[in-house]
Amino acid sequence: MRLRGRKGIREELERQSDLVILDPKQYKGRWSEFFGNDHPIHVELGMGKGKFISELSFRNPEVNYIGVDMYDELIRRGAEKARKFRVENGQPEEPENLALALLNIEHISEVFAEGEVERIYLNFSDPWPKKKHARRRLTHRGFLLKYKGFLNEWGQIHLKTDSRSLFEFSLNSFADMGLWMRNISLDLHGEGLREDLVLTEYESKFVEQGINIHRCEVLIGDRALEEHRRSLQEQSV
Amino acid sequence: MRLRGRKGIREELERQSDLVILDPKQYKGRWSEFFGNDHPIHVELGMGKGKFISELSFRNPEVNYIGVDMYDELIRRGAEKARKFRVENGQPEEPENLALALLNIEHISEVFAEGEVERIYLNFSDPWPKKKHARRRLTHRGFLLKYKGFLNEWGQIHLKTDSRSLFEFSLNSFADMGLWMRNISLDLHGEGLREDLVLTEYESKFVEQGINIHRCEVLIGDRALEEHRRSLQEQSV
Ligand SMILES: C[S@@+](CC[C@H](N)C(=O)[O-])C[C@H]1O[C@@H](n2cnc3c(N)ncnc32)[C@H](O)[C@@H]1O
Ligand SMILES: C[S@@+](CC[C@H](N)C(=O)[O-])C[C@H]1O[C@@H](n2cnc3c(N)ncnc32)[C@H](O)[C@@H]1O
Repeated sequence: MRLRGRKGIREELERQSDLVILDPKQYKGRWSEFFGNDHPIHVELGMGKGKFISELSFRNPEVNYIGVDMYDELIRRGAEKARKFRVENGQPEEPENLALALLNIEHISEVFAEGEVERIYLNFSDPWPKKKHARRRLTHRGFLLKYKGFLNEWGQIHLKTDSRSLFEFSLNSFADMGLWMRNISLDLHGEGLREDLVLTEYESKFVEQGINIHRCEVLIGDRALEEHRRSLQEQSV
Repeated sequence: MRLRGRKGIREELERQSDLVILDPKQYKGRWSEFFGNDHPIHVELGMGKGKFISELSFRNPEVNYIGVDMYDELIRRGAEKARKFRVENGQPEEPENLALALLNIEHISEVFAEGEVERIYLNFSDPWPKKKHARRRLTHRGFLLKYKGFLNEWGQIHLKTDSRSLFEFSLNSFADMGLWMRNISLDLHGEGLREDLVLTEYESKFVEQGINIHRCEVLIGDRALEEHRRSLQEQSV
């Protein structure tokens, strides 16, 4: 068996410019050009092997998805998975509404312009349990300010994690910024598997092991918030 | 041994009108008269045997405490505990800043006037796990609206519970009402016992059994909220 070296992977990625973006900064403010339409853009930060974003992009053709990770090998696997998943489900191989971007999330602000993204998924992000690493947690105030910079008026953040400490940190971080949360769950699959939400790779493993999952949604955009408040008011009359 | 019947207990309670309030509605709008001063009033709803409120009233003489429960026997035990606790700690037996009120919390609005209370403690409230009993949970919207009716401009709610499902419900209930939360904890004693917070009877047992405790604070009053936001802003510069 021939093992692909780092260089080999890079070449393989370069050949897939329809799906894989090695230099995502070039599309800042021009993502709708890349996709060829004005559909809303949903981004998963730290997509891992890409199961979640492949499946979601298949389920929702009216949304453009961008999966972000910082490792070549994960992007390669993600691309493979996305194509395979489509073929298996009787679709043309090329996902029209999916891009996999190689990027360190630290530089996310260089990739998206103001109002360019509608939703961010944070799935099983690294918990960085040590206090001195708190700034690296993807729900740290510093990151949230970056996200606010490019989320649009319907903007939301959807968070899932097994980590109680990351979830606790995140709730406080959202609260301290005065962000509006909803659908907070401390045991997401407690009453049966929530397959409507699409499970990630990590999630499937944790659920098998009986580890409970936390989830919440955060409303960033003004219109998302207005709409939510209206619907709450209607429910409470 | 002579067992005290229900009637016996009631007589015992009637003799303790300095500490035990069998008809708390009579003090609505006049609690400062009862205490003989204008100190802020903190209330524990569902105090059980009264350890928490006894200890807190002993630690903080500048705050007036009211423990509420609906069972005669718990009020009796609470009164006994409060007196004993003070004598053991070298204080006169009568707690000047404590009242134990017999009341079904459903009727709480008949007991406190607008702005009369500064803080509510909800410690290990009954979780009422069945959906059809959701309205009985002490953090249900219906109760929160009542609390808002008598909390003052510095008003806060402090919640502690072992119940993951009640905590989850409460977070959503607070969030859906647009209330500002802080110090959310999913494992309160995870890094060592938080004795600064005074443990309740239930809490001590759960901690011994290794069951983790959830906690959060909710800011209701405008000034409490302003002050908190100012302090957050200072921290973030
Ligand atoms: C624990 S995995 C979760 C993967 C996937 N979301 C799931 O739920 O199965 C976290 C992922 O985030 C990626 N990641 C962590 N920090 C990152 C960063 N700063 N920039 C880009 N990706 C990052 C890692 O490479 C890894 O694939
Ligand atoms: C689980 S115990 C907790 C006691 C105490 N707070 C502790 O943490 O040790 C709940 C208490 O709430 C009281 N309680 C429940 N519903 C009540 C109601 N509607 N009105 C008054 N008290 C109530 C019960 O009598 C019981 O003492």
